[in-house]
Amino acid sequence: MSLVIVGSVAFDTIRTPWGDRERIVGGSGTYCSLAASFFTRPRIVGVVGRDFPRKTLAELRARGVDLAGLKIKAGQTFHWEGRYGEDPNRRTTLRTELNVFADFRPRIPEAYRGSRIVYLANLNPEHHAFVLDQFRRPALVAMDTIRLWIDTKRDVLLKELGRVDIFFANDEEARLVTGETNLITAGKALLGLGPSLVVLKKGEHGALVFGRDLVFGVLAHPCEHVVDPTGAGDSFAGGFLGYLDKTRGLAVREVRRAAVYGSVMASFAIEDFGINRLLGLDRALVEARFRQFRRLTTF
Amino acid sequence: MSLVIVGSVAFDTIRTPWGDRERIVGGSGTYCSLAASFFTRPRIVGVVGRDFPRKTLAELRARGVDLAGLKIKAGQTFHWEGRYGEDPNRRTTLRTELNVFADFRPRIPEAYRGSRIVYLANLNPEHHAFVLDQFRRPALVAMDTIRLWIDTKRDVLLKELGRVDIFFANDEEARLVTGETNLITAGKALLGLGPSLVVLKKGEHGALVFGRDLVFGVLAHPCEHVVDPTGAGDSFAGGFLGYLDKTRGLAVREVRRAAVYGSVMASFAIEDFGINRLLGLDRALVEARFRQFRRLTTF
Repeated sequence: MSLVIVGSVAFDTIRTPWGDRERIVGGSGTYCSLAASFFTRPRIVGVVGRDFPRKTLAELRARGVDLAGLKIKAGQTFHWEGRYGEDPNRRTTLRTELNVFADFRPRIPEAYRGSRIVYLANLNPEHHAFVLDQFRRPALVAMDTIRLWIDTKRDVLLKELGRVDIFFANDEEARLVTGETNLITAGKALLGLGPSLVVLKKGEHGALVFGRDLVFGVLAHPCEHVVDPTGAGDSFAGGFLGYLDKTRGLAVREVRRAAVYGSVMASFAIEDFGINRLLGLDRALVEARFRQFRRLTTF
Repeated sequence: MSLVIVGSVAFDTIRTPWGDRERIVGGSGTYCSLAASFFTRPRIVGVVGRDFPRKTLAELRARGVDLAGLKIKAGQTFHWEGRYGEDPNRRTTLRTELNVFADFRPRIPEAYRGSRIVYLANLNPEHHAFVLDQFRRPALVAMDTIRLWIDTKRDVLLKELGRVDIFFANDEEARLVTGETNLITAGKALLGLGPSLVVLKKGEHGALVFGRDLVFGVLAHPCEHVVDPTGAGDSFAGGFLGYLDKTRGLAVREVRRAAVYGSVMASFAIEDFGINRLLGLDRALVEARFRQFRRLTTF
């Protein structure tokens, strides 16, 4: 079992209609590795400043996250501030302080270089090659992206899509990359750009998975009160890739279950601010919600 | 088996980015009864003008739709004109000519008055009582509504919700009636207003069914090209109620399957203009798509 997650470990300031939180722990790598930790022992590659709480590092380690690839540098940790409105699917970025993340060139520890799955979480696509060239022969490379890279690095992004196996996108990103309004057409168009699996996340409407001979749909857990949507997508990727790492397979049956575990982990993440809910989980709660997802759609 | 559908039988003029159609046959009662005809022998109560094509009446009869309750009056048939943009979930009404529908006070034929299921399709809620009082003891009363009645007859609508068993609404209508943004909260709030089942239709995102101890989700069929979204909701109701009429039960298992058959019928309706696709179907195609829905979500 070996899943390497290259992403941000950060502070988030979150403003919502039902409360604010200042500088709580967040970041794509944090959410993703915590979610994956219920299935495998994820390895995280990232950088934080000396201001990052040791308590969180201890909590991540206690959940089985391997922190050998997490660099602690002089300076301040990446800090993002955002505001959500009544519609949790829409957010506004109020501030982005890259700090030690600004000149982050991910160095992969020797012990990680034979890893089976590599996940590039919202990385500048110009840095993909630098990261991937350090691995020997990963069985699976997955990537996510953000609107910023679609708007500013479109050509590089499209080229990188041709080199990955799995692409995670939300509906807005899928439409922006492909120019297609219809999500089924957009998903299939993304497949045509290279990945063998495309995971299209739709927030409260669940997710769709597209493969060569596969369209699979998973609903979102019926959540009445989304407290903090931050990290939902990263938690989805963590559950999805963590489960695939555990099973070591990529058959259709495993991909379907991976998507449900992705949805399960995302559904937990949004129930509290930051990583609180993921830290408070155990495997039994994860399995119980997996069964709830089955009841939700079985007929 | 006895399902009575009280609704419009009409002409629609449809404008879409990929083509227009002038005065083709439409109407909530038409779509709903055609969709239901794959499960039961629906009875339709409505009114048309002498300009309504005999060919369509023959086609409806050939599908087993009972037209004894469809009045043919001197004058012109109800005519609606609308335009869809790139997003098939949004439409603009360009024209509404009520014609013979304007003073339509639905008279229920004696032979229909013992019917088991009554569906009030987009009817002015002020006329519900007049219609329902003509039935003896229907086992199930279902209703749909439109934005117009939510905006203009809110109090009557809320009162009528307290008298029906099943309420069909799309996401916009559910939010408007309840004032809730979160669809799960909205669905549960609608349950609180009276119905024992609430069916919340979400277009390309499928549908959610809420019951006393039930939240069930069905995805939409992955359709790449929506030709004409008109009638999707009415076809959903037709498949749903037609199946319930056939099975004569209201157990959770039957409700789940009814929702899938609703989605199946809606997924066909939008594949061509007007009622063309529904007219071209047979039971084997319906069952084949039902199995596709199962493959779409099974894990």
